[in-house]
Amino acid sequence: MNEHGGLSHVSADGAARMVDVSAKPVTSRFASAEAWVRLDAAVAEQLRTSGGMAKGNVLETARLAGVLGAKHTPLLIPMCHTLAIDDVQVDAELAGEAVRIVAAVRCEGKTGVEMEAMTAAAVAALTVYDMVKSAGKAAEIGPIRLLEKRGGKSGTWKREAKHGQD
Amino acid sequence: MNEHGGLSHVSADGAARMVDVSAKPVTSRFASAEAWVRLDAAVAEQLRTSGGMAKGNVLETARLAGVLGAKHTPLLIPMCHTLAIDDVQVDAELAGEAVRIVAAVRCEGKTGVEMEAMTAAAVAALTVYDMVKSAGKAAEIGPIRLLEKRGGKSGTWKREAKHGQD
Amino acid sequence: MNEHGGLSHVSADGAARMVDVSAKPVTSRFASAEAWVRLDAAVAEQLRTSGGMAKGNVLETARLAGVLGAKHTPLLIPMCHTLAIDDVQVDAELAGEAVRIVAAVRCEGKTGVEMEAMTAAAVAALTVYDMVKSAGKAAEIGPIRLLEKRGGKSGTWKREAKHGQD
Amino acid sequence: MNEHGGLSHVSADGAARMVDVSAKPVTSRFASAEAWVRLDAAVAEQLRTSGGMAKGNVLETARLAGVLGAKHTPLLIPMCHTLAIDDVQVDAELAGEAVRIVAAVRCEGKTGVEMEAMTAAAVAALTVYDMVKSAGKAAEIGPIRLLEKRGGKSGTWKREAKHGQD
Amino acid sequence: MNEHGGLSHVSADGAARMVDVSAKPVTSRFASAEAWVRLDAAVAEQLRTSGGMAKGNVLETARLAGVLGAKHTPLLIPMCHTLAIDDVQVDAELAGEAVRIVAAVRCEGKTGVEMEAMTAAAVAALTVYDMVKSAGKAAEIGPIRLLEKRGGKSGTWKREAKHGQD
Amino acid sequence: MNEHGGLSHVSADGAARMVDVSAKPVTSRFASAEAWVRLDAAVAEQLRTSGGMAKGNVLETARLAGVLGAKHTPLLIPMCHTLAIDDVQVDAELAGEAVRIVAAVRCEGKTGVEMEAMTAAAVAALTVYDMVKSAGKAAEIGPIRLLEKRGGKSGTWKREAKHGQD
Repeated sequence: MNEHGGLSHVSADGAARMVDVSAKPVTSRFASAEAWVRLDAAVAEQLRTSGGMAKGNVLETARLAGVLGAKHTPLLIPMCHTLAIDDVQVDAELAGEAVRIVAAVRCEGKTGVEMEAMTAAAVAALTVYDMVKSAGKAAEIGPIRLLEKRGGKSGTWKREAKHGQD
Repeated sequence: MNEHGGLSHVSADGAARMVDVSAKPVTSRFASAEAWVRLDAAVAEQLRTSGGMAKGNVLETARLAGVLGAKHTPLLIPMCHTLAIDDVQVDAELAGEAVRIVAAVRCEGKTGVEMEAMTAAAVAALTVYDMVKSAGKAAEIGPIRLLEKRGGKSGTWKREAKHGQD
Repeated sequence: MNEHGGLSHVSADGAARMVDVSAKPVTSRFASAEAWVRLDAAVAEQLRTSGGMAKGNVLETARLAGVLGAKHTPLLIPMCHTLAIDDVQVDAELAGEAVRIVAAVRCEGKTGVEMEAMTAAAVAALTVYDMVKSAGKAAEIGPIRLLEKRGGKSGTWKREAKHGQD
Repeated sequence: MNEHGGLSHVSADGAARMVDVSAKPVTSRFASAEAWVRLDAAVAEQLRTSGGMAKGNVLETARLAGVLGAKHTPLLIPMCHTLAIDDVQVDAELAGEAVRIVAAVRCEGKTGVEMEAMTAAAVAALTVYDMVKSAGKAAEIGPIRLLEKRGGKSGTWKREAKHGQD
Repeated sequence: MNEHGGLSHVSADGAARMVDVSAKPVTSRFASAEAWVRLDAAVAEQLRTSGGMAKGNVLETARLAGVLGAKHTPLLIPMCHTLAIDDVQVDAELAGEAVRIVAAVRCEGKTGVEMEAMTAAAVAALTVYDMVKSAGKAAEIGPIRLLEKRGGKSGTWKREAKHGQD
Repeated sequence: MNEHGGLSHVSADGAARMVDVSAKPVTSRFASAEAWVRLDAAVAEQLRTSGGMAKGNVLETARLAGVLGAKHTPLLIPMCHTLAIDDVQVDAELAGEAVRIVAAVRCEGKTGVEMEAMTAAAVAALTVYDMVKSAGKAAEIGPIRLLEKRGGKSGTWKREAKHGQD
């Protein structure tokens, strides 16, 4: 056994390591993740009532940053593999006093795209924060979490539904 | 007036924009941010009892990824300025069933380093998630939030203390 | 004399080189550049009549890519210096059967920001091309050209006005 | 139908998006693009008569920047996919009072390499401009345009021949 | 014949070029490389006797920088291809008065991963130098050299064993 | 005391860290480094006798990669600061059966440019190796070492002269 308990990124002697995927088959992979940005009530109200342009452009800027962010993943997360990504979709919407971002990534590869989806969602959320922070530094990002993954040996995983945002 | 309400990154006509800092004075800037990663109880227990190496290396990997992540900020967040950063410190510790990351950034410049601190904390948290996800995909990141900023026209801002983690 | 005729980026022996700016004073710098994308008539018509969302989002995507592109300049153009940029503004509008992009960059530094403005305009134009190419691969980018520069030893330069687009 | 007219990068509701290529077959792809840099007559003359070294090194620097630029494409153009590129060739030659750059890119993938060829040509042209601008800021880049693409569902496309440079 | 002697990266007319791998078959590739950092005796002694944490963290930082460095290879080395890497392992140990780094890279592709292994080893070595230079600028990096490669038309190559470090 | 012996990049508790330079004065900084690539005798002979183009282009490609490499330094070396660099000069020459690369970097800043010079030299050396490896994988890189640094609190440091290459 060459890993540390269930931690595939930690070797038997405790060192951080990339997972060798050279012997894994290429399969279709999908992962989606969400990120929330909790706004000040006044900022949310301003975005909602500003006639659409401000809201639209804040959300559109976040979406684009998220798509680009997914492609930066292997340069940011040390143990992530470089992948040829088939698709990155990032959606962002104002939901009450929060912005909800959902990122979905697809690839055909030997390893999953969970981190690409998580990173896309995180970068989109950071971009929203950047654009509203002048009106309210107390805004918080979170949760950022995986919604679903498909493909690979471990197959499909889905987050259990809960009531409310969290 | 050339901005949209209090949103300095949105122009009067609603378009996303970078803030022109050319007329601002250079001052000493500081910002700190925290990010939490909520682990599965079993993963937290495993890190805690594994003799230190696994925990140490997961946290150390996250810290380094956070420091590098701070330097990627202007390539990730569209409206962020490029800056000559004086210091990035990232700490990570196991706190109960969560990892708490604190990032602190300093620079002498015309604009603040809030986004560098937030990005460092976010990238460190994503790195922790990457390293534990094989043992528990349900782990969640958040909150990621600014703790303090100093310097610049708006001066010092500190998050109000609250009880508990949130 | 240590350069090749008027070519400051070519040494006396003909080799490409970075210009040493260590002895230059720090001054306020400004540069603006434009880029045109000549569309197929049908694509221009489609953008114009599509109710605004498609046009708005194509142009907004181009603007954001241009702003990020400016910050990639020293990693793309071998002899460009790394700079702390104060401002990047990119505008894009549909003008007849073309998209016109104008990028303006400011910094306080020892060297000009002409290349940052040119690169921002070029990346924005490439992004427009990417988004319309499925409807017309014959679209052409150009001219991309400096409009104005201010600051530094050579002072202000302005492109002479001409009739029409070119 | 899930796209906006013929614009594959714009969704039915007008939002910019990446094209999902997960269901597309892998085929051999080729694309070539050209970029022109129109020099001041005096600069062209200087390059032509300088004994070869200056001209050679300006063109060689542009070629290399173009090859590297092709590999930056997915980090620059928001909706471009990451690809494993098989080949990037960039040629540059002095043609009258202009530099003509031709970039050709090959890959085996689910999506074309038009943007890699266009970006390589654009970055090479920007690099030429950077190296001659001290001797003539009025130099213009353009046209940058696709010459040919092969592979994929839409098959082969070739630019129709025209008289002269344009 | 379209290359210059045995130099596949130089065309028949002497120009630097990328090797077109579009007609090559995809095979399993492996390469390993080593890099040495020769420390001042006092620095080596300090690392050895400092109770493990300092040594551990210097070596761990170097390992992580090497893994990330491997993924930067196509953005750094002009004629390298972009690849989907299956594995990067970097080890670092204190050997007498030197640090020895070994990097091993795997991919399934049309071209080898020698440069990814060499770059990972070099970036890890530079990182060690960065961390010890305050205590001894005279430290030297070298040799950095390929240990082995497998896969591809040229098959397996192994460095001949020698006595001692070199 | 907040560092670990003379290791400024290691904190008192042994963790890797960036050095906080916020309280340091801005001074003129210079650093130069060299890197050697030991070629197979046959490859050196081929470069020497090939009429200049092949040699010239291998060395020119290495020089340009080195200049760009210097600008990647803070994205590669975890604890390096982002800096506004004033100058990067990289020279490369065939010296017997080796290529000798010398990189020199200048900036006005709070911290030195040793790592930028070392990284420029290393990337240039890796690029030479990449271009000759098809004709001789046994080529070795090294030593890579600092030649001189000037500026900052520790002032001027010069490598002591030795006989021969090493």
